[in-house]
Amino acid sequence: MKKLINRPEDVVTEELRGIEAAHPDLVRVNYGPNYIVRADAPLQGKVALVSGGGSGHEPMHGGFVGMGMLDAACPGEVFTSPTPDQMLEATKAVDGGAGVLHIVKNYTGDVMNFDMAAELARGEGIDVESVVIDDDVAVQDSLYTAGRRGVGTTVLAEKICGAAAEERRPLAEVAELCRKVNANGRSMGMALTSCTVPAAGAPTFELGDDEMEIGIGIHGEPGRERRKLAPAAEISRELTEPIVSDVPFAEGDEVLAFVNSMGGTPLIELYVVYNELNRLLSERGIRITRNLIGPYITSLEMAGCSITLLKLDDELTRLWDAPVKTPGLRWGA
Amino acid sequence: MKKLINRPEDVVTEELRGIEAAHPDLVRVNYGPNYIVRADAPLQGKVALVSGGGSGHEPMHGGFVGMGMLDAACPGEVFTSPTPDQMLEATKAVDGGAGVLHIVKNYTGDVMNFDMAAELARGEGIDVESVVIDDDVAVQDSLYTAGRRGVGTTVLAEKICGAAAEERRPLAEVAELCRKVNANGRSMGMALTSCTVPAAGAPTFELGDDEMEIGIGIHGEPGRERRKLAPAAEISRELTEPIVSDVPFAEGDEVLAFVNSMGGTPLIELYVVYNELNRLLSERGIRITRNLIGPYITSLEMAGCSITLLKLDDELTRLWDAPVKTPGLRWGA
Repeated sequence: MKKLINRPEDVVTEELRGIEAAHPDLVRVNYGPNYIVRADAPLQGKVALVSGGGSGHEPMHGGFVGMGMLDAACPGEVFTSPTPDQMLEATKAVDGGAGVLHIVKNYTGDVMNFDMAAELARGEGIDVESVVIDDDVAVQDSLYTAGRRGVGTTVLAEKICGAAAEERRPLAEVAELCRKVNANGRSMGMALTSCTVPAAGAPTFELGDDEMEIGIGIHGEPGRERRKLAPAAEISRELTEPIVSDVPFAEGDEVLAFVNSMGGTPLIELYVVYNELNRLLSERGIRITRNLIGPYITSLEMAGCSITLLKLDDELTRLWDAPVKTPGLRWGA
Repeated sequence: MKKLINRPEDVVTEELRGIEAAHPDLVRVNYGPNYIVRADAPLQGKVALVSGGGSGHEPMHGGFVGMGMLDAACPGEVFTSPTPDQMLEATKAVDGGAGVLHIVKNYTGDVMNFDMAAELARGEGIDVESVVIDDDVAVQDSLYTAGRRGVGTTVLAEKICGAAAEERRPLAEVAELCRKVNANGRSMGMALTSCTVPAAGAPTFELGDDEMEIGIGIHGEPGRERRKLAPAAEISRELTEPIVSDVPFAEGDEVLAFVNSMGGTPLIELYVVYNELNRLLSERGIRITRNLIGPYITSLEMAGCSITLLKLDDELTRLWDAPVKTPGLRWGA
């Protein structure tokens, strides 16, 4: 196992210490239970957004804590759900009296623990709503999921709902907006290589030198098909077609196109894929009006990419463009 | 070779088409000769900054074209110097009458070609100054270099000098500032894995499963030592000590700390390294007042990292904080 770490059991704590040291202007870190909150939390009268999930997907979610995005993130161990007490304590730490929205990726452990935390928080008088993101068109059920997995659309939902919360919109509206983003966002990913969980010390799965996995999950869960390597044009088409036909996206639609690195894929390749995606969508009369290109929801050092498309309207576009200031995503501030 | 590409000979052109499609608000792309310029170039009365080098180091340099940073970037083929005609045409395209600064990483081909382009541009009546960045403390001479290699400090110089040019400072001052950044910046890198140039199809060098290369260059050039894998704490110390003792950095100094991924190293590991670096510098009474953490000067999919330290003063800090709006680096705008 080749990693820039010390002891595998200390990776998450040491990462959090690094984040705390690097971004004291943006975030505070709590240890035991582990969570990251905005430096200025709680904000009175603002709906607070809390997300979380296993570590190893950085910058998601801890890198998205800050003005215009999340109020708190709960990191579990690598590829392991955070616990209800993390979520409860984070929820209490950021509640400013206007309620808390839990944005939950659809993995069985995450959903169960966030449900429990929401119940406990309600028991303490905090108004909590939960929205589950399930945007991955690759598979219906999976190793860790009943229903579709939650992937790239989560990043977009956190940004857009974060902007709405900054406008002091009420909890019910921010939750409804989150459901709208989920309803209009679809993703699919692929892997050229596996990745290694530090505590496991060996690759999560094996891929031959001439193989790739289409429809991969962000923990290396099996996708649709393991097949021979193909050119970027073909891979891009195999990711784009199931996405486009699912919502469906149609001629005249304006979309946000998100081309994401799984962690080990360099930017030069993401732009090659973006070029293909742009061509494929142009052919269908679908226009990319916003984009995000880079490593935002990763799987450790896995090589590969995912594509997410979100159908935009004026409201979603305006909220996407609103200022954001987090360690992982920043503009206009 | 596992890459998200089509034909190896088309990678750079297709990358440029992707950049052009993704960022028309920020940049324009010229093909044959290849260069990327600010969408609003040339800016009358503003010193223009031009950089360039082999592709494969993205987002450097094309991702740093835009307000507050570069006016143009010339991408060569992967790990191959751009040609004098690219540099000349880019220089002419961005000259707004106040002169052009060439920021050149110290590699023999880059230096030679930028020298030729500067001569040709001067012959056409454009005032050109060149500053060579040679901040890598790992080795004195190398496979591609007489003298030290130019690495991470280049990113910082492009940002800081770009801010000075936005203030309409004259060419001689911006060039002097660039020399000051180079004099106060030092870097060293390491690799856990090799990388594969698309046209070569095989790894640039071989590293055993239990080996790493300390002092690696950004094209995989040999460094100081090939040795057994070590924990992040030890690796961080081996990169930091040669840097600190070189300028030298001393107790009471304020620095910008830049922890860079070579391309294939995930963010979770960079924060582990940042935590170590912060501890090492604290012990020496050196205070990190600004930082940059992520993949900014990469070597395709190479796993590993580099550390760059830049001694700050009020002027450099202020220019670092100034707004920037490029595909690869953005804040305050």
